Amino acid sequence: MSEILSNTIGTIKPPDKEAAAKAQARQDQLTKPRGSLGRLEELSVKVAGITGKELPRIERKAIVIIAGDHGVVAEGVSAYPREVTAQMVHNFLRGGAAINVLARHIGARIVVVDMGIAAEFEPHPSLVSRKIAPGTHNMAKGPAMSKEQALRAVESGIEVINGEVSGGLDIVGVGDMGIGNTTPSSAICAAITGEPVGRVTGKGTGVSDEQLALKVKVIEAALALNRPDPEDAIDVLSKVGGFEIGGIAGVILGAAARRLPVVIDGFIAGAAALIASELCPRVKDYLIAAHVSAEVGHQTILDYLGLRPLLDLGMRLGEGTGAALAISIVEAAVKTLAGMTTFADAGVSEKLN
Amino acid sequence: MSEILSNTIGTIKPPDKEAAAKAQARQDQLTKPRGSLGRLEELSVKVAGITGKELPRIERKAIVIIAGDHGVVAEGVSAYPREVTAQMVHNFLRGGAAINVLARHIGARIVVVDMGIAAEFEPHPSLVSRKIAPGTHNMAKGPAMSKEQALRAVESGIEVINGEVSGGLDIVGVGDMGIGNTTPSSAICAAITGEPVGRVTGKGTGVSDEQLALKVKVIEAALALNRPDPEDAIDVLSKVGGFEIGGIAGVILGAAARRLPVVIDGFIAGAAALIASELCPRVKDYLIAAHVSAEVGHQTILDYLGLRPLLDLGMRLGEGTGAALAISIVEAAVKTLAGMTTFADAGVSEKLN
Repeated sequence: MSEILSNTIGTIKPPDKEAAAKAQARQDQLTKPRGSLGRLEELSVKVAGITGKELPRIERKAIVIIAGDHGVVAEGVSAYPREVTAQMVHNFLRGGAAINVLARHIGARIVVVDMGIAAEFEPHPSLVSRKIAPGTHNMAKGPAMSKEQALRAVESGIEVINGEVSGGLDIVGVGDMGIGNTTPSSAICAAITGEPVGRVTGKGTGVSDEQLALKVKVIEAALALNRPDPEDAIDVLSKVGGFEIGGIAGVILGAAARRLPVVIDGFIAGAAALIASELCPRVKDYLIAAHVSAEVGHQTILDYLGLRPLLDLGMRLGEGTGAALAISIVEAAVKTLAGMTTFADAGVSEKLN
Repeated sequence: MSEILSNTIGTIKPPDKEAAAKAQARQDQLTKPRGSLGRLEELSVKVAGITGKELPRIERKAIVIIAGDHGVVAEGVSAYPREVTAQMVHNFLRGGAAINVLARHIGARIVVVDMGIAAEFEPHPSLVSRKIAPGTHNMAKGPAMSKEQALRAVESGIEVINGEVSGGLDIVGVGDMGIGNTTPSSAICAAITGEPVGRVTGKGTGVSDEQLALKVKVIEAALALNRPDPEDAIDVLSKVGGFEIGGIAGVILGAAARRLPVVIDGFIAGAAALIASELCPRVKDYLIAAHVSAEVGHQTILDYLGLRPLLDLGMRLGEGTGAALAISIVEAAVKTLAGMTTFADAGVSEKLN
């Protein structure tokens, strides 16, 4: 393990119980029946523990979208051609994609990272270039990447979030772009959770039933060929992962090390969270699950991580779109803590018994 | 039925299918796999149909909170003393309640309506005075109100929303404040849906198991004594309802007549939606269910109305708090329709087959 990765993991501490307890005590004084804001109360307490602040603020928000291409699309596992990855990144940079609309809606900035797109980009102020290679190798024929590349992807994610934190950041949502990337995500999910491939593999952007059957076979074959070691997350990432998945895992680890709440988007970000939590189980305390995706397998990941999603809106787009909606709810939760008056201050009578 | 009520009901038309179809066609052209934004797509199409606009806008938002007191609290059915209704209304006017925080978060204005609080208020720019009486009668001893008062409550709600529409409004959320008002809401739910009282009665703001058993008995006795006619919503409202519940029903009807989407909050707003939909079944097409409350019985109401809630966050506060969070999601949905680029405009390749 490299120095930046081991330092980052070593910096991740348990949440601050005292700050969380103070936030809970304050929630119990606010003008509402105790517990009546449900998960908003839990979220505000969780963010207090994560940040170590009794009254956390969520003002500076970012969605980090990491993009990469996948050699395995040569097997016919995706409904869209590979060039859509680069086309959609251009769409992000021009502001016309769903995540642009939703990030504007919640007042978040977008950080687009090229971690391995199979196309060259002109420099752009919103594009961070961290290209490891122009797409992974086809995992059906051998490892998707080398161990060095896998480590570099995770480290690059850490560096990206460190850069964003120095620019000012209170919460981060992580999203993905990469045609074909439900395939490595299902492979990672099967390898780490031990679930059968068929139970954690879905239709992604919308393949046919026949393509789905093929996709399952391709993943099963890739796992049999590459034999990822479930005890070694970097091995799993290198053999059946993707550059953007490694990058997202790095963002998650780096954010936790900086005591930032991390809102994980859907299935691909979930697979990255599996990698991150295998590298550092403590990171789970810093995760907020945005939503449960319509993609089969996502619930398995959430269960494995012990996370309950905030939203269930049948979304399956990625890009951080679910994370954007969820960040707004986390922000609302934190605002109740700071913005509501207490029973005493408002002169409101408390419960009768 | 009065003229304003029958005119309002007569004005409620089915949603505009053509606008909805155009919105759906546009969603299918936007740069994402078809259907991948899940319920956001459905919501945007629904709002297009409601408003009759292919590209609806949600900019001017209001939460209408209607408050009233309840004679039935004399039976010991609530965890909080009756004066909390007025105290919380003062809290709303000072900006310190949960709904103030959440309305500010989503950029909505708040309209607080006194439809029957058992206290006098000084004039306040944010308080609309529509007091019908200082609280209902105790429904355990006789009808909660006269039929004239029930009609007046519904009409007053229509007048309130008409006033708000002329000030400019794109969406309205409806919420309640009234200590004791889960009791009439459960009674309305049982009377209209035919479910047993015990299955639609919960702990409200947090009564004990013993109080819950008492609450069920009080409601059963009130229904046996007053015999509301389930075929006559005004009869149900007058015998076992509340002024704020009638007012919210009026806001719902008036909003539908003006082609506004109405986001209904929790259990009490749901009971009001039952009254409104019995008066005019077509109103259901204008309703968006914000969330499923932790209060037992709310799911029964949603099922009866054929509505799927957007959120499930364990909330049970009322005030329109769930509606506020949901309005932000509806706004996000509508923004995707107008703000995203199409495949053609973005030069993104479409699906392979």
